[in-house]
This record gives sequence, structure tokens and C-alpha cells, in this order.
Amino acid sequence: MTVGQSAGWIAVAGLGPGDEGLVTPEVTAALAEATDVIGYIPYVARIAPRTGLALHASDNRVELDRAAHALSLAAAGGRVVVVSSGDPGVFAMASAVFEALEAGPVEWRALDIRVLPGITAMLAASARAGAPLGHDFCAINLSDNLKPWALIERRLRLAAEADFAMAFYNPRSKARPEGFGRVLEILRETCGDERLILFARAVATAQEQLRIVTLGEAVLEMADMRTMVIVGSSQTRLIARPGAPILYTPRSAP
Amino acid sequence: MTVGQSAGWIAVAGLGPGDEGLVTPEVTAALAEATDVIGYIPYVARIAPRTGLALHASDNRVELDRAAHALSLAAAGGRVVVVSSGDPGVFAMASAVFEALEAGPVEWRALDIRVLPGITAMLAASARAGAPLGHDFCAINLSDNLKPWALIERRLRLAAEADFAMAFYNPRSKARPEGFGRVLEILRETCGDERLILFARAVATAQEQLRIVTLGEAVLEMADMRTMVIVGSSQTRLIARPGAPILYTPRSAP
Repeated sequence: MTVGQSAGWIAVAGLGPGDEGLVTPEVTAALAEATDVIGYIPYVARIAPRTGLALHASDNRVELDRAAHALSLAAAGGRVVVVSSGDPGVFAMASAVFEALEAGPVEWRALDIRVLPGITAMLAASARAGAPLGHDFCAINLSDNLKPWALIERRLRLAAEADFAMAFYNPRSKARPEGFGRVLEILRETCGDERLILFARAVATAQEQLRIVTLGEAVLEMADMRTMVIVGSSQTRLIARPGAPILYTPRSAP
Repeated sequence: MTVGQSAGWIAVAGLGPGDEGLVTPEVTAALAEATDVIGYIPYVARIAPRTGLALHASDNRVELDRAAHALSLAAAGGRVVVVSSGDPGVFAMASAVFEALEAGPVEWRALDIRVLPGITAMLAASARAGAPLGHDFCAINLSDNLKPWALIERRLRLAAEADFAMAFYNPRSKARPEGFGRVLEILRETCGDERLILFARAVATAQEQLRIVTLGEAVLEMADMRTMVIVGSSQTRLIARPGAPILYTPRSAP
């Protein structure tokens, strides 16, 4: 084994939601040592080019190919950072890398692999609005790209029955943009029209936009693929104040 | 209003789980500008003293008093950072600050209040073990200090029925250290003995210790107040490899 090969590693890193002030020093340090950065086009675009660093940007929906590519680069001695938005372990690249690892050559299992956590979208959106996830909550990916729609509906109904606050990733997939309308119907039926819902678009970027309405007022068009949606529990409240109100869930529950 | 008063603000900031490499630059910048840092003793102990900075450390279980103190300092013109471990919006100080804000003098509502997100314990623990939260999941505070035990049991059963991965904060409270034994019983009953469970103690500190077992092997003593517990969904898997195995949940569900 050459020195180059023994030095290879792979870090699956979260860049946070967009603002550089939300990128952890651990991730910044890994990027400074990397020979290769690999990821979805808009995430790789956030990395400053430099001599000795190869940027590998690929399209959406090729996560397994991208993961296998990253593992093979590390096996060949590269210091590889796979970049995700938010946190890599929440509906992002870490699981894809481990799927590829499990399916790939057994030698890959000896690689130095780390997951570097990041600020996931629901935490950034929650912070901007107040603290709607301050009590028990769940996180559901609303894309039915990799799971049956019936499972999404079942989880929504059980989460409502458990009175969790709910954070929704990918509310409007390209494949099924109208599915979110059905989600709103189920939520109105199970949680009632007065329940509070936050639409947080492009959080921690220049395009950030927050909107808090009731489920009775919520419509399909309030969400797009850049929107994080958070539905409060029955205890979630608004504090009126000068400027934007504060949305939060108290620490205690009856 | 004096200049001093108009310049006051309050930032509720997450310090992450322990490693300084997981503190965001946004939080570091707020701490550099602060006149006052306020929080639970071990979190305030993480802040380097400097001239012009007052450190206000208080004991556990006085969150509302601490929050009101922070708000009054900001109202008097202080630049106040309330520090939490992890993320302030997840079972931490942000909700307490908003409870105190709502109950306090109406003038407080005009204050400049920000929540600065951090790496919450479940994301750090998940990253260390692999990606057990890579699919739909829920987060439950197992302390029954501020909610009835019956609600915890109901949420556990519904979360198991929804086949969420589950992240548990505060598995063993001082007030009810044996309650976690009952949690393990309910989980074995609803998820079966073969379901995987991660005990992640003191993640991102020098005392870090990870243990992955099945529910059939899990016992009460594997958790203490510094332990984050993550139970996999039915799809969560282990990858055997040299050194520690990888625990992850694939992106797709049947």
C-alpha cells in the first residue's frame, strides 16, 4: 500500500442551511484538508475553489452513484468530503454513503469514514421563528420518491395522535407536487383548523421568508422545494410583539 | 431611552454537545460581543472569562428564573447570551425564555431576541454511530418533570406503531431514574427484542462512549443523564467492519 492510499479518508459533512456563520469549524477544517469535494450541484457551488482541490458536482437523484464515487476516491488515497446541505444524517447523504458502502467491495469497510454533523433545516427554521420544536416532535420526509405514499399518510395520522410537533422536509417533490395538498387535508382533519403552521423558505439565505398561519389558512402554494414546514403541537403558541410574532412550544404538557 | 438601553439584545445560543469544533461561528461571534452570559453551571463553565463579560451561572431546574433574569439584563441595555448545550430550541432554554417573555412586562416584547441554533445531541450521537436518523424519526424528552408519565408512554407506543426511529433525551432523570426501565419494557413489547438501540454517552467529549445492542440486551444501567439514546426503526441496520460497526437507517422504506 502506498502512502497516498493509506492517507485516504471520507468525511460526510453538513454545510448547514446556507449562512456561512452556521458552518461548524470541524467542517471548515475538513474542507481545508480535502483533495476532493463531491455533492449535489448547489452544495458544491458553496465551496471555494483552490489549487489541489477537485470539485465533483452531480445532479439530484444520483445519490448512490455519487456515494460510490466518493468511496472509490477515498480508497484510492483521496481525502474526500461529501457535502450535504443541513445535517448529512437527516434526509441527506450519510445514509446513501452507507448503502453504497454495504453494497460495495469489502475493502471499503476498512476506510476511515466520519460523519460531521451540521445545522439541519428544521433547527434553523425553528430558531428563526422562535422555538416550535421546544417539546417532543417528529421529522418526516414528505417525498414519496423512496417510500410508499400510504406510509407517509399513516405516519402523519399517528404523529397527530401523539400530539408531536412535526417538521416536514421536501414538502413538494417534483414527482408529486400536489401531494402536499393531501397532507394539509389530513392535518386539518386530525389537528383542526386552528393549529399553527410555519412555512420557512430558504432559511439563512438572502431569500429567507417566514410565514405563520393556521391550518385553516394554509394552502399548497405556500410551500415549494426550498420550504421547511413545521406544524405545531396542540400546545404551540404565538407571542404577538412589534415586528414578527414568536412561535414556540412550552416545555410542559398537560 | 439611553444609548445603553437601546443597544440591549438577547441571544439564546446553542454550544453544541461539547467539542469546540461544533460551535458555530455565529455563536462565537455573539459571545465575543456579549456583556453577560447566563446559563446552567456546566455550560457557563465552557465560556472563557474576559474583561467586560459577566458570567451568571445558575443551577438546574431554575430555567424560568434564569430566563427572566436574562430578559431583564437585556432590557437594561445588556448584550446577553443565554447558553444551552446542544441546540437551544430542543429541550433547552429557548422555550423557557419565551415562557418568561410571555409572562413578563410587555416592554420585553420589543427586545431584540434571536435564537442561534446549535448541534443538538441527537445529531452528534447519530453522526458518531453512522446515520440512524437517516429516515423519518421522532425526538422525545423522557423526563416526566414537566409532563405526565402517561403522555410519555402514549407517545412511545404511537412512535413505535409509526415505525419512527426515536431519539430520547434525558433518559434517566434524578426524579425518576427507574422510569427508563419501563421505557425499555414498552419498546421490547412494541418493537421486539431484535431492534437495535444506541447508547451514546458524553458525545463529543473526552468521556465519549458508544454502545450498540439489541433491545433484548439493553438494561437500565446503560443510560445515565449524560446519555443520548437512539432506537432504530424496523429498517435500521448494522454494517460490520474493522473497529466499530456502523448503525444506519436506509433512505427507502417498504
